[in-house]
Amino acid sequence: MDKKIKIGIYGYGNLGKGIEIGIKNNKDMELVGIFTHRNPTDITPIYEESKIYSSNNIEDFKDKIDIMILCVGSALDLPIEGPKVAKLFTTIDSFDTHAKIYNYYQSMNTSAKENNNLSLIACGWDPGLFSLNRCLFESILPLGENYVFYGRGLSQGHSNAVRKIPGVKNAVQYTVPYDEAINQVKSGKNPHFSSVKETMWRECFVVLEENADKEKIEKEIKQMPDYFAPYNTVVHFISEDEFQKNHTSMPHGGFVLRSGKTSKNTNQLAEFSLKLDSNPEFTASVLLAYARAIYKMKNLGTTGAISVLDVPISLLSSKTKEELLNKII
Amino acid sequence: MDKKIKIGIYGYGNLGKGIEIGIKNNKDMELVGIFTHRNPTDITPIYEESKIYSSNNIEDFKDKIDIMILCVGSALDLPIEGPKVAKLFTTIDSFDTHAKIYNYYQSMNTSAKENNNLSLIACGWDPGLFSLNRCLFESILPLGENYVFYGRGLSQGHSNAVRKIPGVKNAVQYTVPYDEAINQVKSGKNPHFSSVKETMWRECFVVLEENADKEKIEKEIKQMPDYFAPYNTVVHFISEDEFQKNHTSMPHGGFVLRSGKTSKNTNQLAEFSLKLDSNPEFTASVLLAYARAIYKMKNLGTTGAISVLDVPISLLSSKTKEELLNKII
Repeated sequence: MDKKIKIGIYGYGNLGKGIEIGIKNNKDMELVGIFTHRNPTDITPIYEESKIYSSNNIEDFKDKIDIMILCVGSALDLPIEGPKVAKLFTTIDSFDTHAKIYNYYQSMNTSAKENNNLSLIACGWDPGLFSLNRCLFESILPLGENYVFYGRGLSQGHSNAVRKIPGVKNAVQYTVPYDEAINQVKSGKNPHFSSVKETMWRECFVVLEENADKEKIEKEIKQMPDYFAPYNTVVHFISEDEFQKNHTSMPHGGFVLRSGKTSKNTNQLAEFSLKLDSNPEFTASVLLAYARAIYKMKNLGTTGAISVLDVPISLLSSKTKEELLNKII
Repeated sequence: MDKKIKIGIYGYGNLGKGIEIGIKNNKDMELVGIFTHRNPTDITPIYEESKIYSSNNIEDFKDKIDIMILCVGSALDLPIEGPKVAKLFTTIDSFDTHAKIYNYYQSMNTSAKENNNLSLIACGWDPGLFSLNRCLFESILPLGENYVFYGRGLSQGHSNAVRKIPGVKNAVQYTVPYDEAINQVKSGKNPHFSSVKETMWRECFVVLEENADKEKIEKEIKQMPDYFAPYNTVVHFISEDEFQKNHTSMPHGGFVLRSGKTSKNTNQLAEFSLKLDSNPEFTASVLLAYARAIYKMKNLGTTGAISVLDVPISLLSSKTKEELLNKII
């Protein structure tokens, strides 16, 4: 039997936990350890056998880990820590600040290349699988338009913004696409949406502290600049019981649609969509499949930084070439 | 400006015409010629400027064509002609006999490799984009099930079978998936369908010759072994006018769905779907995007036979790496 791919988890939030769970679904992988910035003894992993180490000690694992999966925050942590870890390990991350991806690519590429490592950046579902389909769709249907819809899904950033309002005990925010907007696109009309608020609205479920002022809080949410003011926002007040029962998972999803013409009256519609019970567990599953791919690419000599667009899909599979041609094609 | 990718069309049926149309949508490509088994003077191309040559003369174009797109029949012609053309050109085809793909791969691989050419086999949407998603989905969600639904779409083979019945002047057959079956899959229930007839039915639109026996023909269609007998089949008799108005385009489409679990109670659903006004024009568009990719791969030194699973999606695009990272990821 082939030896297993040795995985390290760097950072232990929702995504890191998703990786810890996901490794169990992939028989060709094993978890070497979880590396945390916190005190390792303060961490309780999901599985008793998972080993917790301090992130200060990653250098000791240089030859014991094949792929280090970076699960620290994308906004503040990855730009600084990514290039450092890429000096020591072949890495994969879910960097998701679209506007800064090219800069991040450059610094990861330098670190990885100089140290003979490979780094797959901006993996997950968006950026990630959605990027793959945006590229595929516009290459196949050059005369057309890409549309992306998010949701129904929990937005962590917007949920946090509501939770910070005094008087709010607990809150979640779901991003919800308008069916009418989706149907317009699917009809092949290639509608123009002047802003994202024409394609989606925001739904909040809020648990109040005792004696909190309902009307004031609803107003405060709806008027919050950037986060809610530009959007159609609906606020529901619910009990803590209902919150715990119905709003503690992290569902998400969305669509990439392309509507394009191949000749004057011939419309063609391509769609990629996800409906996820757990956003972090799915993102983790995508990262693990791509970890398998970059493990193979690294062994074939690829170094530097790459994106999902650079990875042949066959490498994600644990099937042989013959199996793929016989069973998958 | 970069020089254009020089395309040859080998075989001039519906797919060949789709390629002729599709090249106009890709500014980095040009048509060198259409190669036919028939007498070139008997062929009228869609665009006056398209040049028609005899397929006997392809050898004269060895250094004038970058990619030869094989548009001859998949069942009988490709297994014989594919390996011959692959000795002379870098080729792409839509070989679609799933059960024989591995054999076909081997003969194309030998021909292409020995002659320093590259051959992309079994491209299109199924096999092709659907294969890509079957592989992607099962790699990401190893604990799950793939489902494929076809339609609503015109089946050429079944339409021909109906047209051969004496008394039938004209006919089309559409394959239609059952909504209930699709909804069961989308609900995450992972249903088991014991045969394809549980997932789709067949709808025929038939124009009769004068004095033909309606009831006899309906019976003959519904009892036709393999083609219709195993399925729920509905037959409509229509006028030639209605046929010409509503049933002469070649729509098709379908879905690849994967429903899988990442942990005990967490279901994740991924879907890729196509809704096509013209099956041959869309298939041609897929082949052209992949023609761009294998043109680049050939220039980088790849030879032999490959499938869509072996092609990084970035190569399908005419965008630069920086543009892809900035605008697509």
